[in-house]
Amino acid sequence: MEDVQNTPAEVAMPIDSVGVRNLSLPISVSRREGGAQSTVALVELGVDLPAHFKGTHMSRFIEVLERRQEDLSYKTVRGLLENILERLDARKARVTFEFIFFMPRPSPVSKSTALQSYRCKITGELSRAGENRLDFILEVIVPVMTVCPCSKAISSEGAHSQRTEIRLTLYLKNFCWLEEFIEIAETSGSSPVYPLLKRDDEKFVTEQAFANPCFVEDVVRNIAEKLENHQHISRFTAEVESFESIHAHNAFARIER
Amino acid sequence: MEDVQNTPAEVAMPIDSVGVRNLSLPISVSRREGGAQSTVALVELGVDLPAHFKGTHMSRFIEVLERRQEDLSYKTVRGLLENILERLDARKARVTFEFIFFMPRPSPVSKSTALQSYRCKITGELSRAGENRLDFILEVIVPVMTVCPCSKAISSEGAHSQRTEIRLTLYLKNFCWLEEFIEIAETSGSSPVYPLLKRDDEKFVTEQAFANPCFVEDVVRNIAEKLENHQHISRFTAEVESFESIHAHNAFARIER
Amino acid sequence: MEDVQNTPAEVAMPIDSVGVRNLSLPISVSRREGGAQSTVALVELGVDLPAHFKGTHMSRFIEVLERRQEDLSYKTVRGLLENILERLDARKARVTFEFIFFMPRPSPVSKSTALQSYRCKITGELSRAGENRLDFILEVIVPVMTVCPCSKAISSEGAHSQRTEIRLTLYLKNFCWLEEFIEIAETSGSSPVYPLLKRDDEKFVTEQAFANPCFVEDVVRNIAEKLENHQHISRFTAEVESFESIHAHNAFARIER
Amino acid sequence: MEDVQNTPAEVAMPIDSVGVRNLSLPISVSRREGGAQSTVALVELGVDLPAHFKGTHMSRFIEVLERRQEDLSYKTVRGLLENILERLDARKARVTFEFIFFMPRPSPVSKSTALQSYRCKITGELSRAGENRLDFILEVIVPVMTVCPCSKAISSEGAHSQRTEIRLTLYLKNFCWLEEFIEIAETSGSSPVYPLLKRDDEKFVTEQAFANPCFVEDVVRNIAEKLENHQHISRFTAEVESFESIHAHNAFARIER
Repeated sequence: MEDVQNTPAEVAMPIDSVGVRNLSLPISVSRREGGAQSTVALVELGVDLPAHFKGTHMSRFIEVLERRQEDLSYKTVRGLLENILERLDARKARVTFEFIFFMPRPSPVSKSTALQSYRCKITGELSRAGENRLDFILEVIVPVMTVCPCSKAISSEGAHSQRTEIRLTLYLKNFCWLEEFIEIAETSGSSPVYPLLKRDDEKFVTEQAFANPCFVEDVVRNIAEKLENHQHISRFTAEVESFESIHAHNAFARIER
Repeated sequence: MEDVQNTPAEVAMPIDSVGVRNLSLPISVSRREGGAQSTVALVELGVDLPAHFKGTHMSRFIEVLERRQEDLSYKTVRGLLENILERLDARKARVTFEFIFFMPRPSPVSKSTALQSYRCKITGELSRAGENRLDFILEVIVPVMTVCPCSKAISSEGAHSQRTEIRLTLYLKNFCWLEEFIEIAETSGSSPVYPLLKRDDEKFVTEQAFANPCFVEDVVRNIAEKLENHQHISRFTAEVESFESIHAHNAFARIER
Repeated sequence: MEDVQNTPAEVAMPIDSVGVRNLSLPISVSRREGGAQSTVALVELGVDLPAHFKGTHMSRFIEVLERRQEDLSYKTVRGLLENILERLDARKARVTFEFIFFMPRPSPVSKSTALQSYRCKITGELSRAGENRLDFILEVIVPVMTVCPCSKAISSEGAHSQRTEIRLTLYLKNFCWLEEFIEIAETSGSSPVYPLLKRDDEKFVTEQAFANPCFVEDVVRNIAEKLENHQHISRFTAEVESFESIHAHNAFARIER
Repeated sequence: MEDVQNTPAEVAMPIDSVGVRNLSLPISVSRREGGAQSTVALVELGVDLPAHFKGTHMSRFIEVLERRQEDLSYKTVRGLLENILERLDARKARVTFEFIFFMPRPSPVSKSTALQSYRCKITGELSRAGENRLDFILEVIVPVMTVCPCSKAISSEGAHSQRTEIRLTLYLKNFCWLEEFIEIAETSGSSPVYPLLKRDDEKFVTEQAFANPCFVEDVVRNIAEKLENHQHISRFTAEVESFESIHAHNAFARIER
């Protein structure tokens, strides 16, 4: 049967990335405290294509993904990409996994525990050039609460507060646990948010948040200060977006280093 | 050329609705204070199909939509549906327009004015049976602010607040202005939200909201009370969803009458 | 500490449903061939609220969800709702789980197997009235391929084809496997879609689809015919939406019985 | 009243961008054939913030947006950003407008005309350094149809086809019309898509598409070839994503120059 993909391209131009996306897969992710967690990932997988080939062989991406068995980690992402480079005879391969990660969060007073969910994304990029260096990028979105310092200072009572999202993009030099960055983010707003709060917890969270008002500008600086001297991070973007309770629009602040 | 749509169906079964969706169109919407407003609508348009026809003629929906010129209103929706009934030789026709509606909102103290946007949906359904009765359904999403009464009562300082959405689905007996229901909703939470607030406005909004704490349960009852005796509404659903600032999940309450 | 929720409502009106939503949870779902499948669910949980209570106790929903351990099934959904009725002293409780379900799909010729994903939703509603009857609703979205019969009949070569989604909403009288309805849907278009196709599979799929062209109207009738005499279904909606390859808008057809 | 924003930051770190987003506004966009088109934009607006200020003055963004009256164009984006630089005493300002753009598209044979919609995004970035250079980025998503060359070559009849999106990101050196790039994209797949096709048009489109089968790899090279020598483009990304009709996942190809 004819292999149209292997015929010459009409326009002989190299392609940066060609592949598949919008694939859902059950995966497991290693946890800091041991073991692994079952979740579902949305996957994208691509390679470069030299100028002289008309097309890549898309079904091979699916075959490689289908055969992987291991927990998602720095090491297994490298293994997957090495497989892809070989199977597709490519010089560069890139994979992203978007998934929900769960951590048990005890409430601050009654210690009632429930799972909190975090949207995460792991990207690996492996190139044959440069001694097979793996670029490994971790992204995580962490919800917190912010109380507005301006509203608090000028009002005779109260201050508006809102849910705020912290979005981190971290270029790692070495393996780090997701859990570490979630904890850094959760302690950078007016208060963490919790899945389960009893009445005494709610009192504590409200008072703690009001004792620690912060703008999106404060939150993003709090995080950037903690990240900029982190020994395993080569580059990062920290973005904070608050769903202002007094407006229908959002406020944001972003630091890139 | 063969008209495959007009051939007999393999399975002779009537179809409730067949049509097109995900069509974007520039439209204009009549305003209470006169004139019309330009916006963009996402449109769905469908008709019933008798058991003996294999298919409908989808291009006719586009032709009818393309020729409409008038501002969107109770009257012009009826006209559009009458056109559809005739052009597609149908007994039932249904159209929905989803669009953003804008209203100028002055701030409470400095009277600084800017446009607030509201997501709306208008559905019309016309049937040849029952003297061509038009069912006309208005949906609108109105953001407000809520301050938690529990958090306020138990905390030594402050109370958590958040952005909250009020979603109304209104079955109208007669024409009513969208603006009327937006105003009903905006005055049913702890405070309206505003696009533009100067410092003295922010102080006012904060203090007003803290003087008027309410749960989603309170908000939905406030609205339902106003709607249940409205002379032009035959049926409604009011739903309130608050993006809790102390949690990553939301609270909701719904009343259907 | 004051229990504000238990104070009388300002507006004494019963609320149809009050609860929490947008909660992510790791769950497992029973499989027809035995065992269970790990996935992630988006959960909504609500109860009715009598006229005289100001608010419900939202944290109890989280506690009940947190303690559940069992695989998601008809039986365990009933157990969860009975728990909710008791813990929240309610007369009606409703839960929805939205999740991705996976099934291994072998390709038609080379029998290369990979996982196909399906978006599903399970809704349970339990009421103290009427001998604790459980309403159990299954929803599933199944992608298929359609080849246009009109385009095929009038063109000298080819016919446009496209990805098409079949969306089923099934009110069950008794327990049924998700897998059964996925298979019903997959055989109702021009061809199933597959996660992994080698060249000889792609030839087969193309030829099979072209031998079996169908409009959205044909697809929805094919399914409705199979569902309307199903002994365990009391009511259903079947909707088919095709992402037309010759247009940027979609065609749809819907049958409700 | 206290101006908390003007107090010193606890963490004295410059912020790359701080501002507002998720604002909807009615706008008008200049058209190549003269006049302007009414549409709705989702807006983001931000500035840099020096290390020593605690916060920016978010309400000024809204004031500047509220006062703009002109059609969106290269020139008016510069004017808006100059206003922002001045009002917020900033060194860098950035604005994005996301909107739907409409163009009338006649069908190929019967010349039946209807509006086709395109999702667009315009980004302007102005910096006081470097003689007030304006970076102007145009993004547009153009749907086309692709017929698979492999499926056509190996099958005894037909070939799978699907809707495919072309996404262009263009860094402009000088003003260019959106319409120009939409036309470049529409002629780079197997066939354009059309809002309104009569039977003789559908025959033409099907036959034309089958005479011109192409992979996502072919489409992206077709476009890149046209863009890489364009005198007004300094940099671009062209991405093509096809919603494969034989799979539930998508294929993509990307070229950056």
